[in-house]
Amino acid sequence: MSVGRVTLVGGGPGPVELLTLAAARALASADVVLFDRLAPHDDLAELAPTAELIDVGKRPGHHLIGQESIEELMVRRAQDGAHVVRLKGGDPYVFGRGGEEVLACRAAGVPVHVVPGVTSAVAVPGSVGIPVTHREVSRMFTVVSGHAPLTEAELEHLAGLGGTIVILMGVSNLPSITAGLARHGLDADTPLALIERGFAPEQRTVVSTVSTAIWDASAAGVSSPAVIVIGEVVRLADEGVAAARSVLHDASSVTG
Amino acid sequence: MSVGRVTLVGGGPGPVELLTLAAARALASADVVLFDRLAPHDDLAELAPTAELIDVGKRPGHHLIGQESIEELMVRRAQDGAHVVRLKGGDPYVFGRGGEEVLACRAAGVPVHVVPGVTSAVAVPGSVGIPVTHREVSRMFTVVSGHAPLTEAELEHLAGLGGTIVILMGVSNLPSITAGLARHGLDADTPLALIERGFAPEQRTVVSTVSTAIWDASAAGVSSPAVIVIGEVVRLADEGVAAARSVLHDASSVTG
Repeated sequence: MSVGRVTLVGGGPGPVELLTLAAARALASADVVLFDRLAPHDDLAELAPTAELIDVGKRPGHHLIGQESIEELMVRRAQDGAHVVRLKGGDPYVFGRGGEEVLACRAAGVPVHVVPGVTSAVAVPGSVGIPVTHREVSRMFTVVSGHAPLTEAELEHLAGLGGTIVILMGVSNLPSITAGLARHGLDADTPLALIERGFAPEQRTVVSTVSTAIWDASAAGVSSPAVIVIGEVVRLADEGVAAARSVLHDASSVTG
Repeated sequence: MSVGRVTLVGGGPGPVELLTLAAARALASADVVLFDRLAPHDDLAELAPTAELIDVGKRPGHHLIGQESIEELMVRRAQDGAHVVRLKGGDPYVFGRGGEEVLACRAAGVPVHVVPGVTSAVAVPGSVGIPVTHREVSRMFTVVSGHAPLTEAELEHLAGLGGTIVILMGVSNLPSITAGLARHGLDADTPLALIERGFAPEQRTVVSTVSTAIWDASAAGVSSPAVIVIGEVVRLADEGVAAARSVLHDASSVTG
């Protein structure tokens, strides 16, 4: 049997309609789909009608499949001749471990192909009218993982950079992040938004400042997953944003 | 006649197959499409069969339509009842002036809806195997416009941040950017890649370092548009990357 192939697919921030045409095509010809918790998966049976669907997402309380086991499974099924689609949330290269999976395929001699996706780091703030860049407001943005604590040097330079800061996986480390930015002189009134469960029906946004965010997030009971945005661009958020759902499905109520 | 609406669409980094399903659907129902130079436009007549197609891109030597005129045209056509699609390259909020166009629609009372796109800042490096983040190599990336010179403070903090730096529209300011990063202590051996005309058939990549990039870019004759990536992640680029075209169309030769 000839060797198959792997396609790493960025599934975008959640809604099926934010898949790319290339992603939909890859799914349509997949024999196996390995999908993550944050990947779009509601309509997978329709999108990938000929595929075996394997949930490798890490859910609290469920069996956790480690990264190494995912890579082994992906490579083994491709070596057995399958077209394996590895479906991720967002873009494979934005904290998606895409680089590692490409290296695993190469090491095993399995052809691999990457389909980029719409990243939540840009699309989730955009869904409530917050542009990560805006003329005369911000001409740069930094996307950072808040999963592990930031170093003092990272906090110092983030505080000084002056652009938009987008933090993914940062809810639990928010207190140490805002304290660190304060230590390095970030203005206490710098706007901060937390967008919880971006693009899900229960999406919620809390608009605050770096100095009041911990209180406001606690009061609202914000939990993961959430995208945190820090910077003057937050002032451009849609009016009535606390009630914002998806601009994609109901634009007129949000941005009209 | 009732008022129409505007859909700002992120067209992604170039290939039609990197449009989202939502983008394709918006185009299919468009009465008017205003498209940019960097937006995918080869197949527009098929994608938007019922639409009047208006090129508002800025090409050297051609009549230049200013931002204000684009916004006026967009709003006027929507007020006349049309579904106007404003098609941009990449994502509307990543140096795409999407925020300004949303505000122009709101000011005129025209319903507006934003469809995010795949950003070139992530997808173009990814097309040659460079992940903007990679475990134990880089857990943050900053996307910055190199169109205007960077300030001394911006250069200082970019040099100190330690993450990946992605510069869009930076070819002509590359000398001042690398000199500024050098002044603020960035290691001379830090890898730098220039990816010229990402996703076009004539895509070319030059892999260098921050200290040798000006020489190498000049020798190769690199010109705009190009995406510049600075950081250790550049070492992960595909072998034979100077010959890399699109991983999307011919994955096996590049990443296989």
